[in-house]
Amino acid sequence: MGWNKVALVGVGLIKFGELFDKSFEEMVEEAYLNCINSIDKGFDPKDIKAAWLGECNSRTHGHASISGAALTGNIGLAGIPCTRVENGCPTGSDAFRNGCLGVASGVYDVVLVVGAEKMRDDSTANLLNSATRGHPVLMRGETTPSQFAPLAVRHMYEFGTTKQQLAMVAVKNRANGALDPYSHNQSPITIEDVLNSPMVCLPFGLFDCCPQTDGAAAAILVRADLAKKYTDKPVYIAGFGMGTDTFYIHEKESFTEFVATVRAAKQAYAMAGIGPQDLDLAEVHDCFSWTEIVDYEDLGFCPKGQGGKFVEQGHSKIGGKLPVNASGGLLSKGHPLGATGVAQMCELFWQLRQEVPKQHPKRQVEIKKGYGLQHNVGGRGISNSVVTILSINP
Amino acid sequence: MGWNKVALVGVGLIKFGELFDKSFEEMVEEAYLNCINSIDKGFDPKDIKAAWLGECNSRTHGHASISGAALTGNIGLAGIPCTRVENGCPTGSDAFRNGCLGVASGVYDVVLVVGAEKMRDDSTANLLNSATRGHPVLMRGETTPSQFAPLAVRHMYEFGTTKQQLAMVAVKNRANGALDPYSHNQSPITIEDVLNSPMVCLPFGLFDCCPQTDGAAAAILVRADLAKKYTDKPVYIAGFGMGTDTFYIHEKESFTEFVATVRAAKQAYAMAGIGPQDLDLAEVHDCFSWTEIVDYEDLGFCPKGQGGKFVEQGHSKIGGKLPVNASGGLLSKGHPLGATGVAQMCELFWQLRQEVPKQHPKRQVEIKKGYGLQHNVGGRGISNSVVTILSINP
Repeated sequence: MGWNKVALVGVGLIKFGELFDKSFEEMVEEAYLNCINSIDKGFDPKDIKAAWLGECNSRTHGHASISGAALTGNIGLAGIPCTRVENGCPTGSDAFRNGCLGVASGVYDVVLVVGAEKMRDDSTANLLNSATRGHPVLMRGETTPSQFAPLAVRHMYEFGTTKQQLAMVAVKNRANGALDPYSHNQSPITIEDVLNSPMVCLPFGLFDCCPQTDGAAAAILVRADLAKKYTDKPVYIAGFGMGTDTFYIHEKESFTEFVATVRAAKQAYAMAGIGPQDLDLAEVHDCFSWTEIVDYEDLGFCPKGQGGKFVEQGHSKIGGKLPVNASGGLLSKGHPLGATGVAQMCELFWQLRQEVPKQHPKRQVEIKKGYGLQHNVGGRGISNSVVTILSINP
Repeated sequence: MGWNKVALVGVGLIKFGELFDKSFEEMVEEAYLNCINSIDKGFDPKDIKAAWLGECNSRTHGHASISGAALTGNIGLAGIPCTRVENGCPTGSDAFRNGCLGVASGVYDVVLVVGAEKMRDDSTANLLNSATRGHPVLMRGETTPSQFAPLAVRHMYEFGTTKQQLAMVAVKNRANGALDPYSHNQSPITIEDVLNSPMVCLPFGLFDCCPQTDGAAAAILVRADLAKKYTDKPVYIAGFGMGTDTFYIHEKESFTEFVATVRAAKQAYAMAGIGPQDLDLAEVHDCFSWTEIVDYEDLGFCPKGQGGKFVEQGHSKIGGKLPVNASGGLLSKGHPLGATGVAQMCELFWQLRQEVPKQHPKRQVEIKKGYGLQHNVGGRGISNSVVTILSINP
């Protein structure tokens, strides 16, 4: 069942955080080495026939890596093809999707996907200035919280979602992040901490927002029929989808649903031949606490408008009926744009293979049906989403 | 013969130039409409299942299109997947390559590739500042002419290549560009014009350099077995290759050869099952006059060091043994980074289908063996190359 033309045989992550002491090149190299050195039956880098680098903000963050060669030249693989994908918040997961297409095309048997982002070397103000400079509308002061906050307020108005429910997402994810050695934030917080945190943009306090973080993650994808060369426990790409939406907020059909997510999820479930009820866990895009609530709805975990209750009833915690963001999510790990999607694949890989206890005994979720879902949504106008379904079922 | 899993069934281009009166959105829309409206048997946009947008410098040029949704939302296709590829000078051709992989994967039967770039809305100085800001080495004043010029000087020293031979490339391409209604520069020039043009960076005078240009181009790729639905004259993707090289100039093995090009060409020829002797024409990367001379050598059109003589003997002019840049090349058309590679595909499509006389009777090259080659090289450290071979042979 499922697409299963491509298998994930190894992943690597670095500790996310404010990595002022590491260059972009060092972050990428560390993630790559962690990945290939962890592959069960060993790995010869010469097997890699092509690569994809997910990195979103090279110029605004000043590390000037304007081409895929910034990856390959840096890890001793100068020579092989390398595409750089830049696609807003789903940059890493879309690089992963393009890597899957590359393998499935029959042109490249083994490929490397790396996602990485330096978010802290330059100020956020410079980032936003550069990102919108010259644009007639966007340069008038748009920030990311101000894109999401009005939608959250509308969701509260329409469905009775509460600030307490938003806070429950943050508390759950920070509790999970405290068990994740790769996470940026590793301290648990309380509902009161969230509700009393400094206001960023109504209804988001500071602890409703993910931190600004540096990070890198890597993955090796191979033709499914070649997977046994590298591991006896491959994780298959059961399906994926990508959805887009209109670019400007005033064009949107709904303010309480991300149509891009709904479209991406529909494709991914169809390709995998499963539904949300078949998932053992999900790593979803919680750039803000409210984002995870709307994700529950858009991904079909609960009916429309019931996202707040879903977290309140404990369904999305580790041990609940569908653990969401067992890694700690973006609220704990941070959101280095290029790295985030690939890091989510790392968590699903470890969880599905039940290897999380090596990191922390309490973070492992129960694996029953063998499916995990990855999700990102974002980009200008929140117009862009990728959903990927990984599986241990051949 | 050749890979031929994917077919090109339609292309569209806009007039390149200083398009201050057109937004990014308008350029993209015009190229897209020119493309789908020119497809022989008609085209329903609903057939498009995924898209790739090649665009290199969104933030530095201030139009803030940070995701693929900037394409799809803008042409009435909000919903379908769209990846934005950013990969230095081969951005457009690499978006095209990823589109080919997407079709060949079996996931998407029909895809759209659009390449576009706004180069003139912001100053070149701002562009370079933004591109290198924060980088410990690159921010010390690197410009593109200063990357290529020392290599050209070395080539002149090692192989006796002359400034006159460089000028012959510019004269040939500007003569061709004068026959191309889509070209930025449409006036022929003389050897004296080139030699007397203001010095930019030794040995490059102004007319040895391509202009700064806005532009957009579009292409529709389909599964080869579905091509007849759209046209009786499909152009097949016979092969492609991508090569990378070390990122910094001091790490390079050679200063008179672009290893990335050599690697990309080797893959493309092998995939197509042909050699340079089978080509009817080539559209190659002539960002500077000398670049085309080294391209001849790297692509196997002539032995190492003989590139200067190749142009001097007239082999690369229309009517010569291998016409190169019949479109006018980058020296005439300009080099809107995302658009360039896709625009080269447009020229090959028209030339191989012998449709150029509709534009100008004197620009059509003779089609004997039915193969055309596309080439880009660039990116930071000139570390990145894509070569694509198109063919009318099923």
